[in-house]
Amino acid sequence: MAQLRIALAQVNSTVGDLDGNADLIVEWTRRAADAGAHLVAFPEMMLTGYPVEDLALRKSFVEGSLRVLERTARRLADEGLGDVPVVTGYLDRRTVSLVRAGQPAGSPLDAAAWLHGGEVLVRSAKHHLPNYGVFDEYRIFVRGDRLPVVRLHGVDVATVVCEDLWQDGGPVSVTETANAGLLLAINASPYERDKDDVRLELCARRAREAGCALAYVNMVGGQDELVFDGDSIIVGADGTLLARAPQFTEHLLIADLALPAADPALEPGKVPVDALDGTTITIDRRVLSPTPLPAYPVEPQSVSEPLDDLGEVYAALVLGTRDYVRKNGFRSVILGLSGGIDSALVATIAADAIGPDNVHVVLLPSRYSSEGSVTDAEDLVKRQGLHSRVVPIARMVEAFEEQLDLTGLAAENLQARIRANVWMGLSNEYGHLVLTGGNKSELATGYSTLYGDSAGGFGPIKDLTKTMVWALARWRNAQAGSDLAFLHPFGEEPIPEVIIDKEPSAELRPGQKDRDSLPPYDVLDPLLVDYVERDMGRDALVAAGHDPALVERVIRLVDLAEYKRRQYPPGPKITAKNFGRDRRVPITNRWREPSAE
Amino acid sequence: MAQLRIALAQVNSTVGDLDGNADLIVEWTRRAADAGAHLVAFPEMMLTGYPVEDLALRKSFVEGSLRVLERTARRLADEGLGDVPVVTGYLDRRTVSLVRAGQPAGSPLDAAAWLHGGEVLVRSAKHHLPNYGVFDEYRIFVRGDRLPVVRLHGVDVATVVCEDLWQDGGPVSVTETANAGLLLAINASPYERDKDDVRLELCARRAREAGCALAYVNMVGGQDELVFDGDSIIVGADGTLLARAPQFTEHLLIADLALPAADPALEPGKVPVDALDGTTITIDRRVLSPTPLPAYPVEPQSVSEPLDDLGEVYAALVLGTRDYVRKNGFRSVILGLSGGIDSALVATIAADAIGPDNVHVVLLPSRYSSEGSVTDAEDLVKRQGLHSRVVPIARMVEAFEEQLDLTGLAAENLQARIRANVWMGLSNEYGHLVLTGGNKSELATGYSTLYGDSAGGFGPIKDLTKTMVWALARWRNAQAGSDLAFLHPFGEEPIPEVIIDKEPSAELRPGQKDRDSLPPYDVLDPLLVDYVERDMGRDALVAAGHDPALVERVIRLVDLAEYKRRQYPPGPKITAKNFGRDRRVPITNRWREPSAE
Repeated sequence: MAQLRIALAQVNSTVGDLDGNADLIVEWTRRAADAGAHLVAFPEMMLTGYPVEDLALRKSFVEGSLRVLERTARRLADEGLGDVPVVTGYLDRRTVSLVRAGQPAGSPLDAAAWLHGGEVLVRSAKHHLPNYGVFDEYRIFVRGDRLPVVRLHGVDVATVVCEDLWQDGGPVSVTETANAGLLLAINASPYERDKDDVRLELCARRAREAGCALAYVNMVGGQDELVFDGDSIIVGADGTLLARAPQFTEHLLIADLALPAADPALEPGKVPVDALDGTTITIDRRVLSPTPLPAYPVEPQSVSEPLDDLGEVYAALVLGTRDYVRKNGFRSVILGLSGGIDSALVATIAADAIGPDNVHVVLLPSRYSSEGSVTDAEDLVKRQGLHSRVVPIARMVEAFEEQLDLTGLAAENLQARIRANVWMGLSNEYGHLVLTGGNKSELATGYSTLYGDSAGGFGPIKDLTKTMVWALARWRNAQAGSDLAFLHPFGEEPIPEVIIDKEPSAELRPGQKDRDSLPPYDVLDPLLVDYVERDMGRDALVAAGHDPALVERVIRLVDLAEYKRRQYPPGPKITAKNFGRDRRVPITNRWREPSAE
Repeated sequence: MAQLRIALAQVNSTVGDLDGNADLIVEWTRRAADAGAHLVAFPEMMLTGYPVEDLALRKSFVEGSLRVLERTARRLADEGLGDVPVVTGYLDRRTVSLVRAGQPAGSPLDAAAWLHGGEVLVRSAKHHLPNYGVFDEYRIFVRGDRLPVVRLHGVDVATVVCEDLWQDGGPVSVTETANAGLLLAINASPYERDKDDVRLELCARRAREAGCALAYVNMVGGQDELVFDGDSIIVGADGTLLARAPQFTEHLLIADLALPAADPALEPGKVPVDALDGTTITIDRRVLSPTPLPAYPVEPQSVSEPLDDLGEVYAALVLGTRDYVRKNGFRSVILGLSGGIDSALVATIAADAIGPDNVHVVLLPSRYSSEGSVTDAEDLVKRQGLHSRVVPIARMVEAFEEQLDLTGLAAENLQARIRANVWMGLSNEYGHLVLTGGNKSELATGYSTLYGDSAGGFGPIKDLTKTMVWALARWRNAQAGSDLAFLHPFGEEPIPEVIIDKEPSAELRPGQKDRDSLPPYDVLDPLLVDYVERDMGRDALVAAGHDPALVERVIRLVDLAEYKRRQYPPGPKITAKNFGRDRRVPITNRWREPSAE
């Protein structure tokens, strides 16, 4: 056996911020070197951030990634870190470009590089491109076809990128043939509920298949609608968990591994192998240091416990909100505080994410607001120490009513839109980012006003059912006094109990309650999950035990709301090519076109 | 040689309206049969509409398509049309499903079927899946691997689907080997400027490669952001144009073709052939009627002239607007009419699309509106016979000012948002669809108010530069008295000349002009086209002759606006799977989950 101390740098990179991300590589490599690591690994697309969407198709962006990669290799050496090999994700392109109709412009690659001695030692790229759910990688990448195997202190280390671990065939299937002693997978794998369990099982299975230990480093941080949770993992060749990083925070996971020494008969060079998925993968062997290290004392492994289910979700919302605010260059947020549970939870998440002193709330009572609404909201403001302002809307509503004779829903929507005008005005005047308070139950059923309560830049709870909103509010109150790092240390329960307990109401007409328009949430929410998230059809919903009449009603509500929810006006496309900014670009994105040289 | 009269049914199907689309198949097959056609072809995905986006992943939708396809075959026979073979696009699925991670659920196919004698004779599916620009088909389809060749009246007719024509290799490359006498391509190919020329060249080239005549039938109609222009084409084996349908209108293109008689030695059966793209295509031969028809007198061919460039664009906008309104179940539209060119052009497009009597406009003067704004707008209303209403906003602005001390841009945005509140209120009260008037120059540079002028359901001119807005307004005025079918027969120029000639202004502060904030449009627009549509980087823009300082400024404006333009609040995704309605579904979509049987 040979020893190797590896460091997995679970860091938070920002899309487009090539220089900032390169700084992170240098900074965390230094920390790893200081801890005596022999190898440091960074996540998939570390240098560019992930996902880059159609930025991958822009020539200057790919060139920027390549330039900064090489500059970073030199800089590591210049700063005395050239001896520690660094594996990092970056954006590359196929040198023999496949120019044909429909192929991504410039043949971009979701690439991995080994940096060492001031140079880029070996390059490879993701073979399996995910193109489902939140991923659209066939649009922007071409496949890699290589498995690099680098001999480091007598251990053959193979590297693959993210999806290659999730699919059968391809580079991972070749790892056993390659006789690797360690399989290193670099990832940008977004958080989903319960995914941590799936990942650990996957890593254990692939380790057994490859017949070697597996180190899995994942990105952490928020990027638009996605949150990366970290949860980096190391398992032994038998699938045993050896080390695990904490979730939702940057972390350097260091582990001393005892690994099989490489067969010296295996020479450097390239060997094509059938990858069992209809393709050929070339094993690309390099030797950095052929001999195992002299034995050294190992440090204890660290295995973090995952958070419980609600804690995970809450941590994801806090991190997602903080990174959306900060990475987009805002320092403060504003939101309407109604006295109801949704805006109360959003305010609390925001206070945890960026500190109460950066959270501004507006109370916007109308003629239909109950007295409790204002006093409950004021109680929350006081408990959390937020900035607040009261802006009654009655006079504004009257000014519209002088000109327009709106009734029913139109009159209700008017009030919601006047409120949005107020917070958008304050946002424009003072530069706060507007947070919205819509939850998934409301949004899915259309119980929401277009350009009204739904207006704003970021909706922290838009993917939570109302049931989950209540559960998280109770969970958060129960943490008062806890030392969880992602929570602000409020002295008491941050959300007044009366806000959690009151019956939901939009307060847009006298005596209005959610239950006048919607089924009770404990019946509605499970049905929404089955229809909206599990994509079950009508028959399947009824077969699963949902009330047939309710199924009819909710399908109708959701299908209608789906249409109404599309706010940005589409219009016919008539450009010569649907190119450029008509393509998809991340919102949070620091990439700036380079200046002329 | 053998004769064949073929009919290309260039029709307007609606996404999700399986029964309505099936009705169209029966109706147009009857018209073709009445005209003596021996074969009728409908567009790609005729039965489901196109594009269906993630609806393809819903089991009940695929089953609906299969059920309606078979029902339509029987119905054609029941109604005495069983002898005329019908080729149509529909949604199918691979029977041997490839269940593996990342493959589209249910293995959907973008399929083509021959219907004959009450039955589905042969099925095939698109081989090349476009996954660029507006297409994302790797997400929702798996590849077809078959080229059906059906002998009809002694002619071997091969069928392919859309993208198979655009890519090298695959079924089209096998057509010559298959000795086909006619290649029939069914398409849903969206309009792009100047695409008609590209299509004709492509058809001519593929005909020469395949060594046989080629018939190209395309969809017509608007679907959300896309417009299909029809422009169905028939070319001879040497690439000569034989027949061409008009653009932007439903049409039955009938042509008598003299085609080589099939080699009787070629027997029915399946033959796998190397498709020159790394795959194997199976030629699937069927015989419907082995013997050529007795000679019959041919009808003259019809070759429609394409519209000129501006006429094409205007026709696309009219059709796109009409179908967005009608297919989404609206009968009328509402928009704010400012007295400027943008809203004037939108009103005119709307009047052409759905008739002036269905167009409602609101004049919303503020303290900064010039007198001309109102009188010019009133002149347009009178010329076109629109419904109009004046709603002064001064009192509403004052009511906000009593509570808020907004300055600069925040104060300007407030007025734009108050106006939007008015038209959204009237939309909610009376059920009109809101049209917005933002053009691409404004939207790309952020010269627009979020939830203000940009608020609404459909933006007919959002993809036009300001330069193009003026050009189309002049083009439309010059058509007064023309008999173009897509224009309303106004007695005089529909747009007052003074509206076209006046200097652009948002009128949100005293004396404001666009040129205070933006470069002149004749300089800005070409730069926007290069940066936004052609995706050129900074160096390339300067090299192309744009002023370096202007390039800096416009890149900054566009990058900032790109962020601000994203209106719908994103938020972290934390569902167990990113499934269901979180997937992409067309806005215009008539699909309804079937009731329990």
